[in-house]
Amino acid sequence: MVFKVGLLGLGTVGTGTAKILLDPEGRHPLLQSIEICKVGVKSLSKSRQVSLPPDCLTTDLEAIVSDPAIDVVVELIGGLEPARSLILKAIKQGKHIVTANKAVISRYGDQIFTAANQAGVYVMLEAAVGGGIPVIQPLKQGLGVNRIQAVTGIVNGTTNYILTRMQNEGGDFEPILAEAQRLGYAEADPAADVDGFDAADKIAILASLAFGGRIKRDEVYCEGIRQVSAADISYADKLGFVIKLLAIAKRPYPNQPGLQVRVHPTLVPKAHPLASVNSVYNAILVEGEPIGQVMFFGPGAGAGPTASAVVSDIINIAATLTSAATQPVANPLLACSHQHYSPIIPNAELFSRLYLRLLVKDQPKVIGRLGNCFGDHGVSLESVVQIGMQDKIAELVVITHEVQEGAFQAALDEIRGFPEIQDIPSLLRVL
Amino acid sequence: MVFKVGLLGLGTVGTGTAKILLDPEGRHPLLQSIEICKVGVKSLSKSRQVSLPPDCLTTDLEAIVSDPAIDVVVELIGGLEPARSLILKAIKQGKHIVTANKAVISRYGDQIFTAANQAGVYVMLEAAVGGGIPVIQPLKQGLGVNRIQAVTGIVNGTTNYILTRMQNEGGDFEPILAEAQRLGYAEADPAADVDGFDAADKIAILASLAFGGRIKRDEVYCEGIRQVSAADISYADKLGFVIKLLAIAKRPYPNQPGLQVRVHPTLVPKAHPLASVNSVYNAILVEGEPIGQVMFFGPGAGAGPTASAVVSDIINIAATLTSAATQPVANPLLACSHQHYSPIIPNAELFSRLYLRLLVKDQPKVIGRLGNCFGDHGVSLESVVQIGMQDKIAELVVITHEVQEGAFQAALDEIRGFPEIQDIPSLLRVL
Repeated sequence: MVFKVGLLGLGTVGTGTAKILLDPEGRHPLLQSIEICKVGVKSLSKSRQVSLPPDCLTTDLEAIVSDPAIDVVVELIGGLEPARSLILKAIKQGKHIVTANKAVISRYGDQIFTAANQAGVYVMLEAAVGGGIPVIQPLKQGLGVNRIQAVTGIVNGTTNYILTRMQNEGGDFEPILAEAQRLGYAEADPAADVDGFDAADKIAILASLAFGGRIKRDEVYCEGIRQVSAADISYADKLGFVIKLLAIAKRPYPNQPGLQVRVHPTLVPKAHPLASVNSVYNAILVEGEPIGQVMFFGPGAGAGPTASAVVSDIINIAATLTSAATQPVANPLLACSHQHYSPIIPNAELFSRLYLRLLVKDQPKVIGRLGNCFGDHGVSLESVVQIGMQDKIAELVVITHEVQEGAFQAALDEIRGFPEIQDIPSLLRVL
Repeated sequence: MVFKVGLLGLGTVGTGTAKILLDPEGRHPLLQSIEICKVGVKSLSKSRQVSLPPDCLTTDLEAIVSDPAIDVVVELIGGLEPARSLILKAIKQGKHIVTANKAVISRYGDQIFTAANQAGVYVMLEAAVGGGIPVIQPLKQGLGVNRIQAVTGIVNGTTNYILTRMQNEGGDFEPILAEAQRLGYAEADPAADVDGFDAADKIAILASLAFGGRIKRDEVYCEGIRQVSAADISYADKLGFVIKLLAIAKRPYPNQPGLQVRVHPTLVPKAHPLASVNSVYNAILVEGEPIGQVMFFGPGAGAGPTASAVVSDIINIAATLTSAATQPVANPLLACSHQHYSPIIPNAELFSRLYLRLLVKDQPKVIGRLGNCFGDHGVSLESVVQIGMQDKIAELVVITHEVQEGAFQAALDEIRGFPEIQDIPSLLRVL
């Protein structure tokens, strides 16, 4: 049995994917039965790092998704359109889909999986989260027998690289971003990474798999790392924390349907397994009952790792089809089984530990006034520490116990009106 | 479709497995179709932590493996016999097997997988290595598209607990072992753990999956942690290392069939991802092309985590059977596809960095004489450091470059005969 693959896109990941498929020696024997049939590209004249069979390249992507010879369409063009339309057309033509496209899955997963269930095809997306790290498949299969309590990830390599350098060098965000861009670790337009949108796409996907319900992407709260300063990193360090951009999906109340799904810079205790995940590496920590904690660590991006995930999905489909009935019944561990939406709990109702940095005029009783105001709103404080004093302006760091964010915000709104308050440069969450 | 499970053994892991299966709410929906049919135990009168259906318990294990109603036999009695015979009988009766038994798989995997291939059934063993950590399935599926270069694991929680405490407290092996036994982290007979046999079983299994060839268990070199002293841990620490019991499977020469498969205490650089895996936690680092490094981290033992792995195997079989043809063709990602043995390279031919601690009489030129002797055997040294001096006996630590172990041993044999040598208390490998 030979499985014919149509590749949409021959950029970094597409080239990496073709390289594995064209060089199967020493890899899983099933690769011998996978054949690249067509590759859709923008330009036929561009020189390529892989030598593909003649007549394989085409600029007609529509022709690939409707080619009757093709069994599996691998979408690696990225972005929302034409990726979404091509995937939907391919599904209607009975093709199985492999994609690395977190944006299209997190936003149009409902359309795509509904269409796939109707057509009886698989949509596989191991490469969409964590690059080469096998995390989608373990969540769908091995870990699925647990009641998942939380999935917490460092899922964006660019921001982790920037935060790691800020941590190691004591530098500020802007110059390190500029150098990351120069070195190719950050895009010319860094918004998707540094504003947390990429991580939000990924945690929406992970939450959906871990908790068995669809997630509305625009309900995922998302805060990037632009506001994280060298001062905060240094204070956090003294308090025993590192600052990481965490993507968190959590069921805060056992046996209740509401989820917390959000992305924000977070103070992580140094002994926590995610604290030592540095540079461009990604890691995903899964907590469940009865398994406890398991963590998956590895390269979150790059041609080779991402291609490894793409090709593992291709052989997964091929293996399932090899053993499948002629009138196929979907393998329930590969197919998407849930169709309802999970309710997302608003931030104001969630309980968090919070870190607040304030600049206050050095007047007597200011700490007492802050404490009273928080207390009036039921916000319990763990510590208030004066870090420094310059020109009669004192710098305070407040850390709360686990408090309801809505109550904290109400207190903060009141505090902002105090005449003693000069500025509130930072508000971060603590893991 | 309902899948009927026969459980052999209702100890810690068996009880954990039954608990998950009897309480499917909030877990993968496929669990609803799994039913515990029979449970084989030693004693019917023992009180149990799970309430099983009446008439479910039996002391007749043979009857379970030949019961025509049962689809999947879950072997959790451990040890070699009667586990091996029961598994083989169950396979002959067309049952699929799930086992957590690393000893029987590493020693009798050839018989078991040959029988399973003939009978067209699956033998699943996620729980045999790394407890709850999904590592078998990723190696068989997601990572299989890579050319695996090395699998390096901390796969024994007892020894990692002891070494972590020795590291943190500066204590010696014997008293910490005794306390680990008192606390239940080590068995009354600790040999399987502290002499490395358990880790050797596990690395034999991992090597077999990673490199696609069977491994003869008695060819796995195995050295435990009894000889690791507080002094070595302290010197290693000063040199930037921690000492871990590593299980290593490696293809030292690309594109050549020979493998290195061994277990030994190892100096691990502090920045290495495995260095911070402490206490009873396990971790497995997989290196391959093109993926680079991925690491799996989690609880390596315990009722809940191990049961999670057992049940994930059960639903994996159920999912595959759900979508399978009536005349089943094995799913090549679940089945065992290799039947040849991988050649294991003898230690003497392998290249390693080595750490040697010697007590020598304080005579002039002793370091020179050592250096000359190593040099004569082509053993290149990285450093020779005098650590201490007591009663005219100097303590030296030698670290070599990557050298052939046979040449090193030849030099060491000669050095043992030097009149200046008082004792050679430690020889360890460096990662």
